[in-house]
Amino acid sequence: MKALTYHGPGRRTWGEVPDAAVRDPEDAVVRVDAVTICGTDLHILKGDVPAVADGRVLGHEAVGTVVEAGPGVRTVKVGDRVLVSCISACGRCAYCRAASYGQCTGGGGWILGHLVDGTQAEHVRTPFADNSLHRLPEGVTDENALLLADILPTSYEVGVHNGRIGPGDSVVVVGAGPIGLAAIITARLYSPSRIIAVDLATSRLDAAKRMGADTVLTVAEATPEAVRALSPDGLGVDVAIEAVGVPDSFELCTRVVRPGGRVANVGVHGEPAVLHLEDLWIRDVTITTGLVDTHSTPLLLDMLAAGRLDVSGLVTHRFGLDEMQEAYDVFADAGSNGALKVALFRT
Amino acid sequence: MKALTYHGPGRRTWGEVPDAAVRDPEDAVVRVDAVTICGTDLHILKGDVPAVADGRVLGHEAVGTVVEAGPGVRTVKVGDRVLVSCISACGRCAYCRAASYGQCTGGGGWILGHLVDGTQAEHVRTPFADNSLHRLPEGVTDENALLLADILPTSYEVGVHNGRIGPGDSVVVVGAGPIGLAAIITARLYSPSRIIAVDLATSRLDAAKRMGADTVLTVAEATPEAVRALSPDGLGVDVAIEAVGVPDSFELCTRVVRPGGRVANVGVHGEPAVLHLEDLWIRDVTITTGLVDTHSTPLLLDMLAAGRLDVSGLVTHRFGLDEMQEAYDVFADAGSNGALKVALFRT
Amino acid sequence: MKALTYHGPGRRTWGEVPDAAVRDPEDAVVRVDAVTICGTDLHILKGDVPAVADGRVLGHEAVGTVVEAGPGVRTVKVGDRVLVSCISACGRCAYCRAASYGQCTGGGGWILGHLVDGTQAEHVRTPFADNSLHRLPEGVTDENALLLADILPTSYEVGVHNGRIGPGDSVVVVGAGPIGLAAIITARLYSPSRIIAVDLATSRLDAAKRMGADTVLTVAEATPEAVRALSPDGLGVDVAIEAVGVPDSFELCTRVVRPGGRVANVGVHGEPAVLHLEDLWIRDVTITTGLVDTHSTPLLLDMLAAGRLDVSGLVTHRFGLDEMQEAYDVFADAGSNGALKVALFRT
Amino acid sequence: MKALTYHGPGRRTWGEVPDAAVRDPEDAVVRVDAVTICGTDLHILKGDVPAVADGRVLGHEAVGTVVEAGPGVRTVKVGDRVLVSCISACGRCAYCRAASYGQCTGGGGWILGHLVDGTQAEHVRTPFADNSLHRLPEGVTDENALLLADILPTSYEVGVHNGRIGPGDSVVVVGAGPIGLAAIITARLYSPSRIIAVDLATSRLDAAKRMGADTVLTVAEATPEAVRALSPDGLGVDVAIEAVGVPDSFELCTRVVRPGGRVANVGVHGEPAVLHLEDLWIRDVTITTGLVDTHSTPLLLDMLAAGRLDVSGLVTHRFGLDEMQEAYDVFADAGSNGALKVALFRT
Repeated sequence: MKALTYHGPGRRTWGEVPDAAVRDPEDAVVRVDAVTICGTDLHILKGDVPAVADGRVLGHEAVGTVVEAGPGVRTVKVGDRVLVSCISACGRCAYCRAASYGQCTGGGGWILGHLVDGTQAEHVRTPFADNSLHRLPEGVTDENALLLADILPTSYEVGVHNGRIGPGDSVVVVGAGPIGLAAIITARLYSPSRIIAVDLATSRLDAAKRMGADTVLTVAEATPEAVRALSPDGLGVDVAIEAVGVPDSFELCTRVVRPGGRVANVGVHGEPAVLHLEDLWIRDVTITTGLVDTHSTPLLLDMLAAGRLDVSGLVTHRFGLDEMQEAYDVFADAGSNGALKVALFRT
Repeated sequence: MKALTYHGPGRRTWGEVPDAAVRDPEDAVVRVDAVTICGTDLHILKGDVPAVADGRVLGHEAVGTVVEAGPGVRTVKVGDRVLVSCISACGRCAYCRAASYGQCTGGGGWILGHLVDGTQAEHVRTPFADNSLHRLPEGVTDENALLLADILPTSYEVGVHNGRIGPGDSVVVVGAGPIGLAAIITARLYSPSRIIAVDLATSRLDAAKRMGADTVLTVAEATPEAVRALSPDGLGVDVAIEAVGVPDSFELCTRVVRPGGRVANVGVHGEPAVLHLEDLWIRDVTITTGLVDTHSTPLLLDMLAAGRLDVSGLVTHRFGLDEMQEAYDVFADAGSNGALKVALFRT
Repeated sequence: MKALTYHGPGRRTWGEVPDAAVRDPEDAVVRVDAVTICGTDLHILKGDVPAVADGRVLGHEAVGTVVEAGPGVRTVKVGDRVLVSCISACGRCAYCRAASYGQCTGGGGWILGHLVDGTQAEHVRTPFADNSLHRLPEGVTDENALLLADILPTSYEVGVHNGRIGPGDSVVVVGAGPIGLAAIITARLYSPSRIIAVDLATSRLDAAKRMGADTVLTVAEATPEAVRALSPDGLGVDVAIEAVGVPDSFELCTRVVRPGGRVANVGVHGEPAVLHLEDLWIRDVTITTGLVDTHSTPLLLDMLAAGRLDVSGLVTHRFGLDEMQEAYDVFADAGSNGALKVALFRT
Repeated sequence: MKALTYHGPGRRTWGEVPDAAVRDPEDAVVRVDAVTICGTDLHILKGDVPAVADGRVLGHEAVGTVVEAGPGVRTVKVGDRVLVSCISACGRCAYCRAASYGQCTGGGGWILGHLVDGTQAEHVRTPFADNSLHRLPEGVTDENALLLADILPTSYEVGVHNGRIGPGDSVVVVGAGPIGLAAIITARLYSPSRIIAVDLATSRLDAAKRMGADTVLTVAEATPEAVRALSPDGLGVDVAIEAVGVPDSFELCTRVVRPGGRVANVGVHGEPAVLHLEDLWIRDVTITTGLVDTHSTPLLLDMLAAGRLDVSGLVTHRFGLDEMQEAYDVFADAGSNGALKVALFRT
């Protein structure tokens, strides 16, 4: 089969690899009908994730059709349309039993396109299929479902839930890329009073407005004073969501949150940040980090099916599966072409 | 009346000041029967808290007897034995209405011995007396109650509650001074399986053992690996409580907590810490900071009266009120004399 | 001044009573600009609330203007436009300190139009004014604010919060009178997937649809089987809100809730209900009751001001203040005239 | 093999049945080393649980040794000492994924000795072995572990957790049989200030005292007024745990709980109770029901191994496995012989 493989920093290939096959009784093999590329894939290609071996098939997000299921698989069967989630779950370890699938110690967690071959291929082997695939409800399109493989549950669980957003809250989302935009969309499920989006790119701020931000600020405009001034009493926002992954944006979050507020980090960081405990120790601030568990994926799928979750506009560019290299080029150059998510479809 | 006043860095005086008096209808005046000194008072004397004006009477912890009450005071009356809490509460602002008295925006919060004259005196004026004083239950001694003016509710709310300690948890408390020891005592109310105490001083580690720590480690012994090795599965502790206020101890906390664990900062910090987001972003960690609200003070007083809270051993040195300067000297030299809390009594 | 007074079962008078005046330093007197009638007032008039004395001025909901404030009042002043809330709060007792104002043991709770003279008058004395009045934000009309004196916070706190409604939940609201409709409006703040409304009157079911119910059922249609069949998996709804106050509707709620679901009782009951513990003991059901605390009132006012809360359609009939008797007649005959809330305005 | 089988109301047999064997790849077969009898078994024998078929092997609590494991079993292996829990979990359904194993819709839940053959036998087949068996930590005796098969997690989850017991709370436990006593033991993990036990039998009240009740009352003494008088402010207790399963004891719980308090039903009920909504609607009461999920079993096992959970005294009578009939006779006559739990051991 064809797949996108990693061969050391800066080197990716689209070519033939051995076919995906069931190796463990709990595996399934899924034909990939739609797949996308994540910012994390770009990190891998930069060499930032040394655990990724040479020759690894990348990708941890897909929608597809089950074509083979091991004898231990009970809840999905050949022919089922499924969402391939970024997180696999053994279902037996203490973390899985607490629905913290992202922290699975039994062989799951984020493994696809990382420790085992991933979804940017014609087929993908999915370990622990019962607890890692999600059958698609009727009426959900491949493209929309694809957005629930990672960015929607990530922003919802790690941003909105960890930030404990509630009705009437003021919220700042720093970073209006796909994750930040998904945070805006899912934050609105809790009826905050004001969502402020911050980004470098005005094209992304425009997208933020379309998806529900009430106020948008460029990074230059978003001084701590300016953001706090937008909160009801000037004390700061209730919740700040970091959706970039750099020290400055994290620090901004800690400077604009009100006493008693929450900072929910969603960004993937490569270096330490400064934590101003000399100011924060007295301010009743809660800071959270997290990898998605995807425990909310069934709920989000149901809401998508019921027309309660509007993800339109997140996919900006569409390709055939064998245009993988071109799709990577477009996604890697998002700054100049306004790409948010790219979607590739079986042809 | 006599009082301990601040006169710039390094200068304190025990001498005559104008008598405490009711200035606002909601004030009370309390005769100080027992008073103590806080580490924060030493910070003030170093000049670290510039908001403290020259001539300010220091101190924010006392037990005493109401000798005068303004016409707006309804719940305490002349002759009542009361706890003077470190936190005053206007009772009307949004923070007070959410029981976040420490963040009061209506003129309360930590004001005693900071923005208004404090408790290290023969008498103290207590603003917002109805929401800031606590009548003592029968059978509670002045000395024991004194420990509930600050350190017990601080460690319980900001350490134990913020850390969400529960039955069976593994807990590390970094710093075994008065606050850290109080964290050990109050953590035990939730039946953790193991409490590990870390400190520089073996005398404090001995105290930690007496108060319920299961394992004690010197700072040299307490490498991240050593602490994690003491957790049930080697993944790290459920809860780490920072009770020192320096970057290293905070960083230790973030390095020993398991995925999904909590770091509760209680220490008063004077400089920033490094937050290793490059490791932590993926680990589902919650970090909290906080100033005590004292919402738990009535509960702790009831438990003290019922014999459910053992605070013995926390007071190591006792003085008469006019030995204030000597008490300060002893407390400031805790490293060599093993002082924990010093208590001064009206004579 | 003119007021509506109670004189035993079935007897109400609109006539002269002594002017409202400050009696306690914490009282304010408010000129009533808008006032409404509650179902509870009808209960009082039936004689169901024996604590109401002969001659009592009824009413516990109003919007008005402060015309006098006692010397202990600090947060409102003469000339302020305020919401007079159904709950008064002493602000000092253990319940008030936990924001359970409805259970105030210090002289507050539901007292207006019950234990002290109420709001159906030209002026009203409001005890504990600082903690019981809410200043109106700019841009909020009297009529809209009036709905936040009781029904909006009641349905939000006792229905939506106690029922722990969350995104994607299925919800049934039994009773589509003013409280049930307000429950539908406030439930939507949490983006449930489906709201089912049940009532006897098709006019109320029409209103329920306009305000956001997805499905409406008459009582005859709303068999337990029919309601459960509307839940995603047929197991029952996540949350059932009782907004009538009769045994049958409560029982229906307990029969349609899924294992693990919540029944939030909001209705005012006059007799016991049967609790089918022989079925329920094994089903992980949570049942809550409650009187509103109005701790959410500031939040709801802010959301109203920000255009985030649409209460249009709840007021169906408008009168001048001196048409009080006619307004009562209309409200008491809601079954035939489709009345929801009636509003009376100072002329 | 030998087993205790049910043959219609009042008829039980100890005799030969076909050997337990693996039927499904996820099954294990466990040799029973210790087993006990539950009050529910007596209900079955009265004919109260019609789902139990003729010939069914009873029992849902055991400790044993794995003697066979299906090919799909990964976390236990032949030779492992295991706890056979009353609850089996498919690990895949929505309830299991939320750790609500008791409500499993995938073939688990309470099935042992109910829908499939149970533990009162020489061997038992355990479906979904990975998610239903718990490996025993070192140093835990069979007898002590046996108490964690049902009564300890049941009282802890359905009583203590649902009742949200916290430090300083006042608690009444109505019923001092095995479940009620286990509720007293596990409630103490949260340091309540006072535990009041109520029972008909003074022998059980003596046991309640030994296990940590501060006050004991016979049913005759336990009027609502008497119980409320034992609460700190006379308003009622914070938490009432029903551990009998009859309407009167449930009603007592609802009458003694303070405004804002919780009633946690643990008892197995056979008939409806009266719910006095005419009093309760205004009192902010939360009532919960539940079947154990056993999500706390690993925690309780760890605490038992660490010496943090004292279950001594709960087993009052010990037998050999082939004395099953005699053990039933003793347990059924607990009223006269003071039996709490009986334990039978492989000989």
